[in-house]
This record gives sequence, C-alpha cells and structure tokens, in this order.
Amino acid sequence: MAIIVQKFGGSSVANAERIQRVARRAAEAAAGGNQVAVVVSAMGDTTDDLIDLASQLNPTPPSREMDMLLSTGEQQSIALLAMALHAMGKKAISLTGAQAGYQTDGVYSRAKILKIDSQRVLDELNKGNIVIVAGFQGVGENGEITTLGRGGSDTSAVALAIALNADLCEIYTDVDGVYTADPRIIKTAWKIPEISYDEMLEMAVLGALVLQPRSVELAKQHNIPLHVRSSFNHSQGTIVKEVAPMQKDLEKELIVCGVAHDLHVLKTTIFGIPDRPGVSALIFGLLAAEGVNVDMIIQSGTREDKQDISFTCGRDEKDKVAKIAAQVVKELDAQSYLLEDNIAKISVVGAGMMTHPGVAAIMFKTLADIDCNILMIATSEIKISCIIDETKINEAAIALHKAFHLDR
Amino acid sequence: MAIIVQKFGGSSVANAERIQRVARRAAEAAAGGNQVAVVVSAMGDTTDDLIDLASQLNPTPPSREMDMLLSTGEQQSIALLAMALHAMGKKAISLTGAQAGYQTDGVYSRAKILKIDSQRVLDELNKGNIVIVAGFQGVGENGEITTLGRGGSDTSAVALAIALNADLCEIYTDVDGVYTADPRIIKTAWKIPEISYDEMLEMAVLGALVLQPRSVELAKQHNIPLHVRSSFNHSQGTIVKEVAPMQKDLEKELIVCGVAHDLHVLKTTIFGIPDRPGVSALIFGLLAAEGVNVDMIIQSGTREDKQDISFTCGRDEKDKVAKIAAQVVKELDAQSYLLEDNIAKISVVGAGMMTHPGVAAIMFKTLADIDCNILMIATSEIKISCIIDETKINEAAIALHKAFHLDR
Repeated sequence: MAIIVQKFGGSSVANAERIQRVARRAAEAAAGGNQVAVVVSAMGDTTDDLIDLASQLNPTPPSREMDMLLSTGEQQSIALLAMALHAMGKKAISLTGAQAGYQTDGVYSRAKILKIDSQRVLDELNKGNIVIVAGFQGVGENGEITTLGRGGSDTSAVALAIALNADLCEIYTDVDGVYTADPRIIKTAWKIPEISYDEMLEMAVLGALVLQPRSVELAKQHNIPLHVRSSFNHSQGTIVKEVAPMQKDLEKELIVCGVAHDLHVLKTTIFGIPDRPGVSALIFGLLAAEGVNVDMIIQSGTREDKQDISFTCGRDEKDKVAKIAAQVVKELDAQSYLLEDNIAKISVVGAGMMTHPGVAAIMFKTLADIDCNILMIATSEIKISCIIDETKINEAAIALHKAFHLDR
Repeated sequence: MAIIVQKFGGSSVANAERIQRVARRAAEAAAGGNQVAVVVSAMGDTTDDLIDLASQLNPTPPSREMDMLLSTGEQQSIALLAMALHAMGKKAISLTGAQAGYQTDGVYSRAKILKIDSQRVLDELNKGNIVIVAGFQGVGENGEITTLGRGGSDTSAVALAIALNADLCEIYTDVDGVYTADPRIIKTAWKIPEISYDEMLEMAVLGALVLQPRSVELAKQHNIPLHVRSSFNHSQGTIVKEVAPMQKDLEKELIVCGVAHDLHVLKTTIFGIPDRPGVSALIFGLLAAEGVNVDMIIQSGTREDKQDISFTCGRDEKDKVAKIAAQVVKELDAQSYLLEDNIAKISVVGAGMMTHPGVAAIMFKTLADIDCNILMIATSEIKISCIIDETKINEAAIALHKAFHLDR
C-alpha cells in the first residue's frame, strides 16, 4: 500500500465547491488503494483578510499574535475538507499542525520545522482515515503556535512526505506544471515533464512561483519526488526529481530548460562610499537585521577611494531599505543613495549550462539585439540573471525563449 | 492586587473599532492595579458564517470537525485583542483554550469543563500581561479540540474566575444589566441592581438571554459574584450574588423581581395514548436521545384508559419532534399528535414567592383580566410560568409587570 501526500493551495480550497473537488481528488487517491494524507492551505483570501484586519488594530502586530491569528485559516480549511469527505461517505479526520506532530524552532512568523512526530498521522491512516493536515503551522516549545511563513504549506507537505516515508508527494496548484517560461507571455512555452531539483529551485526562486524554494530544497535533501500539477484537471504535471531526463535533452542542445522573469525587484545603489574595510558588512548586516532578503549584489570599482554598491531585493522592502540606505549614507559619510523599482529580472536556467560554455554570451547578445540594456548580472552554476528595464521584460523573455531553442 | 476576569461576547468584538473599545476596557481595569484576564467570544457573526459554510459541505457535519472549525473564531478574537492592546503599549498575550489549561470531558460540541490548569495564565499575569483567553473551547484527552456549546464563553469566564480565585467576574454584553422585564416591550421596566443566583437562573432560562444558565449555576456553586454590564458604557450593571438585597425589598412587598417571556416555544401534544406504565419513559427517552431539551410537561387525566401528554421545547427542534411524535403515535397506537408554535411562555420570577403565598393566584387573575387563556402551567419554588397565545404576550408582560408592583 503506497502512502501519498497531497498538498492543495489556497486557491484550490477557495470555496465550498472547490473544497468538494479537493475531497473527490483525495478520495480517488484513497480508492486506488493508497493511504492518503492531505495538506491544505487557508481558503483563498483568508490569510490576506486576516492580515488586513490585524493591520486595522496594530500597524506592527506582534508576530506571536499574528501566528495565533493566521493559523486559524488552515484550521478552518482542514475541518471543512474533512466534512466534505464525510459527506461523501469517506473516513477522514483533520489535524492541526500541533496534533499532526509538527515541532518547530519556535520562531514566530518564519518557523523552521525541527521534526514531525508522525505517530498520530500514521495511527489515523492505519484506521483507514484520509488524514487532513493544516499546512503552514506547527508548535514550538510550550505549545506556542508558530507559522512557517508565507507559502510554508509546500514545506509542510514535503516534510510530512519525508516523515511518513511517502511514495509520492503531489503539489496541487492553479497551474498545471512548470513551464519553460510564463505561458501568459510566451505563447510557445511548454510544460516541462521532468525537471531536476536544482533547476526547479532556480525556476522557483526566479519568479515561477509554483513551488516554494524551501520545499524544493527539503525534497532534494531527502530525495522525495514531487509532482506539481493542477487541481482543476487530471493532466500530468511536472515531476521534480533528482536526475531529470532534461539532461538527455542536452544531446539535443537543450542547454536551458526555462526562462524566468521577476517584476518584483527593487534595485538600491549607494554612491560614493569611502573605500575601507567593513563597509559591506555594515550595510548587509543592517539589511539582514531587518529581515531584508538581498538577491544580487554588485560592488563597483573604486574611484578616488570611493565606491558604489548596488543590490536588489523584493519591492515590498522599499520602506525598510530606504531607511537603512539613509542611515548608511549618514554613518559612512557616503554621497547619496538611489532606489529604482522600474526594473525587472530575467533569467535563464538549466543544468546543461554547467557543461556548455557560451550561454552567457548568447544571453547578452540576444538582449543586445533587442536594444535591451543590462543593469546588473548575476550567475550561478545553472542560472544567469540580468536586471533590465521593466518595459523590456516581455520582449526579452520571448527573445531568450527563442534563442535557447525552447520555442515549440 | 485583585484578580478580575472580564468576559466579552461576540457583539462586543464584532469589528476592529469594538475590539479597540474592549482593549481600552481591559487596559483600564489593569491600570487600576488589577491583574486582568479577558475571555472573549468569536467576532460577531463569525460562528454563524462558519456554520453556514459547513452546511454547504455537509448537512450533518461530524461534531469533531465542527469543533475544529468553530474554535477558530475565538482564536481570531484573542489574537486581534492582544494586538490592539500591544498597539496601546500594554503587555498582553493571547491563549487558546488548550494553552489556558481548559480540560474538558472530550464530548464534541457540548463539552463540560473538567478542570482548568491555570498555571500558564497565572504565570502570564505575574509577568504583567493582560491575559486574553479564548472562550467556548477546551481540549479533551489527546489534545482533541472541543467546544462547550453555544454561549459557552460565559461558562469559560466563570470557570476561569473560579480557577484563578478571582475577586470579580465581569460579564460584558450588549445590554447594560438584567431588567425586571424586556425594556423594549415594557417601558417601565428597570435595571435590577442585585439579583440572587437562583433568580438570575430563572430569568436566564426564561428568555432574558443575558447570561448562560450553566455559567450562573457554576458561579452559584463556587459563590463567585458576577457583574453583568454593558461593554458600550460605564454604568453599573447587575450584580449576581448569593444573598441579593432584592430580599430586603420583600418587606416592601416586592415578591417578584422580574417578568420574563419567551417566544421561542413549541408545544407538542400526543392525544389518546393507551394508559399503561412506561409510556412517558418511552416518549421522553426518545426526545432525550435526540438531544431535545424538554421544558414543561403535562399529563392530562385519563379518559377511558387513554391519556394526552403535552410538552414544550424550543421551536428549532420542530423537525426532530415531529418525527418522534409520529413514531410514538405509531408505536403506542396513540390517536394523533399536534405541534403548536403560535404560543409563548410568560413567567414571573422572585425568591420572595417562597415566603409569600398567592403569587400564582395574582398571576392567573391578571391574565384572566386581559382575557388571556392559559394553556399550560409550570412552577418552581421561585418561578411560575404559563403558556399563552403568542399574540397576547406583550399585553400579558405589561399587565404582570404592573400587577407585581414592578412599574416605576
């Protein structure tokens, strides 16, 4: 008997009708002779609505109380899904994160799962139940409710799959898999049948927001295959696993598996910083202390003992970053700072580039051919990212998709 | 330093503005040098909305899952109230029923509190926190979430006051106390400054839905004084305690402390039941098994080995009762049954009637004087109730309020 973990996101359980669809999906898997555990997120906009409500009462609500508040969203979903399964005559039981044995490090709002004591889940599976588990949450010491941070439900599902030694972890979402590029922009984009963890990680981080990067890392560490698929149809999605046949495509010169873009980018430059040790440590120490996740960093060559430092992060960090930049300019006696949010990031991803030189050259030439100026560059072993003007992003994505022979 | 338990119902926390008002209320009590624990219900219509949602998925949702669902309502309120207090610069912490140590008998949907392990609450109070506790909920064995049933938050508050050995338990509601009659109907009704537990119990049960009867019973057992007052103003409400000075009023001939009415009454009569032992046991056993709370019972004199049995219960039990009545008629070979919901109950309550004969006579004469027919009568030591025609209820309440010298 196989153990399957299914995860359904908020849009998949946004209303009663969709919850019934999820219930049918879980029941089908169980009817196939499998033991099924289902991890669900909060219904549709529930989390956003609760955040709105909280902000009316406190512009900076304490994170402990935010976790107390937000964890109710998933608790509602699991109860409703269990009810829907009962209505179909299926045995089902809902479990909160605490009841399902999720133990976290106790850090509010962005807890890490330390371990899952899966005995209760196993007991309920062995009683013939479909077990419905609240995603996104767990408890720290003393039974304190902690959430895993936005999108943490993917991580909840993968962690449960690991704890149960599940045969498969299915991630149901509102898209039907991972595409070579955003199909809304690039009509020739196609669904990748299989992709490696590393490629998925780069695709996920870069704005193809199908899977939370944390969950992909976790799956990679424990070699749990993920099946990313749509909750709205039964078509095969994308399998994320260790050695993906995309590597076979290398022989057909498919060096790049996808083009990802991200409009949610803020570029900050601090000009005229005195060139002395510890400057970068100060700047990025301040950013880290405020929880700003920095992506790309460029330190320009010095001119007359002065240097410029540029970095990118998410646009929603704008207020924090402006404050820190002003502080840095003052403390370091720098010249000035500039925040730019009319930019975007375009990236090509592929394990193939490890063995194929010249990918960067093709990328830069392709962008040059469409008169697209490159503002920043960052590379990893399987990814090259460029910051470009926001208005050029669609044109760049289309050109790169074609240049790397991804068009079908 | 006094310990005060405050309880706020759903209408008192129905929106952000009202939650802020509750926060100010709690903060005022704490600023007065008291340790303050606050028990809150779910916001406004949250519980009803969740029940609606559940019924879309399952007409008879399993009670375990209903408790899982409904307990989120209070969890949201406590988090939001804690945030509001933080925004005012006050130390506050929210605790779920489980965290606050509420241990129940584990019966879903209508759990009884077995005990409160109040150590966590005391620890948090001693740290200088205003402690916000989720009403209506607790956990059974194995950490299973159970709710106390509708209106259970009053009971949560009284139980916490007992566990903390609190000096006072304030029940905040949307009316400013207990009145001698419904002031919407009887303009001359006035707020009773102090009332005994027993009188309050009769008033509460009879439709002056200010306090849950269970909570009054609990307060009586442990001699905890309750202060029923409005969350919308600062005026003194009604104190419920053991020996109320209403008894002093006896000397001023105030035998009756209030007139209560209840429109939510269903009368059922089963006609022509063969007169043999066990008939009542069968009927009321079936009703109990279905959870129907029977109020008044009348068994009429026999005629030719046949008898009629009438009883009243809440109108929302109509479907259940109709089914049971049909079954009884069939099983006992009775003649027929009749359900009437065009009736209402009017009652006079007062500890004074224990020592003053003739209250019933005054009541019946008063009703006769306004041509009001009495369909059923039930009495306790401190209460007389009559079932009358629904259309006569206001007139009867006004007449009785006057007859027992309650008009001011």
